[in-house]
Amino acid sequence: MRGHMLPEFKDIEKAARRIEGFAVRTPVIENPKLNALTGGRILIKAECLQRTGSFKFRGAWNMISKLDAKKARGGVVAYSSGNHAQGVAAAAQIKGLPALIVMPADTPMIKQENTRSYGAEVVTYDRATESREAIAERYMKARKAVMVPPFEHADIIVGQGTAGLELAEEARDRGIRLDDVLVCCSGGGLTAGVALAMAELQPSAEVHSVEPAGFDDYARSLKSGKIEKNAKPSGSICDALMSVSPGEMTFAINSRLLGAGLTVTDAEAAEAVRFAFEVLKIVLEPGGAVALAAVLSGKVETRGKAIGVIASGGNCDPGLYARILNREI
Amino acid sequence: MRGHMLPEFKDIEKAARRIEGFAVRTPVIENPKLNALTGGRILIKAECLQRTGSFKFRGAWNMISKLDAKKARGGVVAYSSGNHAQGVAAAAQIKGLPALIVMPADTPMIKQENTRSYGAEVVTYDRATESREAIAERYMKARKAVMVPPFEHADIIVGQGTAGLELAEEARDRGIRLDDVLVCCSGGGLTAGVALAMAELQPSAEVHSVEPAGFDDYARSLKSGKIEKNAKPSGSICDALMSVSPGEMTFAINSRLLGAGLTVTDAEAAEAVRFAFEVLKIVLEPGGAVALAAVLSGKVETRGKAIGVIASGGNCDPGLYARILNREI
Repeated sequence: MRGHMLPEFKDIEKAARRIEGFAVRTPVIENPKLNALTGGRILIKAECLQRTGSFKFRGAWNMISKLDAKKARGGVVAYSSGNHAQGVAAAAQIKGLPALIVMPADTPMIKQENTRSYGAEVVTYDRATESREAIAERYMKARKAVMVPPFEHADIIVGQGTAGLELAEEARDRGIRLDDVLVCCSGGGLTAGVALAMAELQPSAEVHSVEPAGFDDYARSLKSGKIEKNAKPSGSICDALMSVSPGEMTFAINSRLLGAGLTVTDAEAAEAVRFAFEVLKIVLEPGGAVALAAVLSGKVETRGKAIGVIASGGNCDPGLYARILNREI
Repeated sequence: MRGHMLPEFKDIEKAARRIEGFAVRTPVIENPKLNALTGGRILIKAECLQRTGSFKFRGAWNMISKLDAKKARGGVVAYSSGNHAQGVAAAAQIKGLPALIVMPADTPMIKQENTRSYGAEVVTYDRATESREAIAERYMKARKAVMVPPFEHADIIVGQGTAGLELAEEARDRGIRLDDVLVCCSGGGLTAGVALAMAELQPSAEVHSVEPAGFDDYARSLKSGKIEKNAKPSGSICDALMSVSPGEMTFAINSRLLGAGLTVTDAEAAEAVRFAFEVLKIVLEPGGAVALAAVLSGKVETRGKAIGVIASGGNCDPGLYARILNREI
């Protein structure tokens, strides 16, 4: 990637003004029990409370709200395992544009239903044998629609980055200098946006991607310095974090700004979902809980530290959630 | 009750200063889907995100923080079905006082465990055959401890009223004049505090108690003008709302300030718990969801209205929650 094409902090500030009144300024939750348990101050940015149940609305609205309604009358197309789908569908609905979303057939039903509930058309595909990019591309051309990529776009990255901006501001308002910021990571758009915000507003903070074990393409890429791929396209309860490899643009930012990538097991993610239920009283999906899981399972030093945690989403199938609560997972 | 003994709005303002930095200023959640569904603006005060998982910490800390640590060295005693227990235990722990809590033996295990986790001693009793007041009274005398009643005390009422104060302020900041405010109601302490706050800050709002069907002592008392009792001491999934009758002090306030009392069935409460999971992404216990249930089940006119809803608590046993998600309830 050529450096001058990459988004910068000032673009996040512009995005923040653009999403105001549309996206929720989600609360930053600090819990006495969690602080006592970790010996630190853990600031949880509760993006499950965001419009559509995840941070994804931020980037989608940042990009879609800028579209020329006349030129974009063919609508928008996106491919997504679920949260980006809902964010794009809701943003398109507000903008008054049709949306077509290409989703894996094994996506949790709640994400498919919710996507349709925002007026979008949903087309499913087989994650193992078909290419979602190719399918989305085909629809895009046929309908003269605008593609809204899940992470590989400056507008998306800086839109997601507003979550980091808000967390950084909230930490500052509480007189806190963050030592680490942990971000649930798939294609790396949220992580890149948060890293850009922290580099400017909380420069002492080391930002870490957190991924499910076995799907740690980002951690391995950061280590090797080049883009690595996951061996499998699915197979974790963290269905939101199944991107096969980092994006070129997100990796160009993240490889410059991130500390070491972290991973957690499905069991650790499930434990974090239960902790969020029992103590924090917020609903997290497994993929939205991996950053919290990294804290709870001791993947970073917490004693005496101030740690920002992005709890990125809460769109969990009720049946899966019930199994997690019953400790079947 | 003699009028001059009753708490007033200015006492809520004092309580608000007292709890600052100890209690959480919980977010007021407004959800586009809920607004679209109801045709109104629904402002949800998410007290499940309060310290100890319910509003109860507010009143407990307001009363306990004022105690003279020397005179109160015998500690505090309380009887509670669970949420007040946790609020008192956490407040006593911060104050450095021992706490003994008398709880029904059928209280959800999570509430008993959480109460112990704040360092309190828990004594259980049989709800059907024993008097919790008598047991608590006995311990209080033996230990020279201070009784912290669940609702029948001015400090408790105005402490809980800070939730109403914050909701009223938040509505004002959003330019909203509330038409109705719905409050999950058991002994009536939270309801009375919220009613006092609204009478001052949102005088156009009609405040309604919401209770489980079959446990509508408050609704019937408001109708008859005198204190009525429930026929049974338990038998609803709303374990937090099982007080047998209104308190004299809370009724003196509520009978002057409230509109008609509302009731919802267990099925309606369960539906609201699921809605909070699927759409709002907050964890509510059934008793903490009855005010939301009243909105969702059409117990008040919502079209074109602005309605405040106190979502009072989220301490739900995981097993019960799983059954609700699986639609077994």
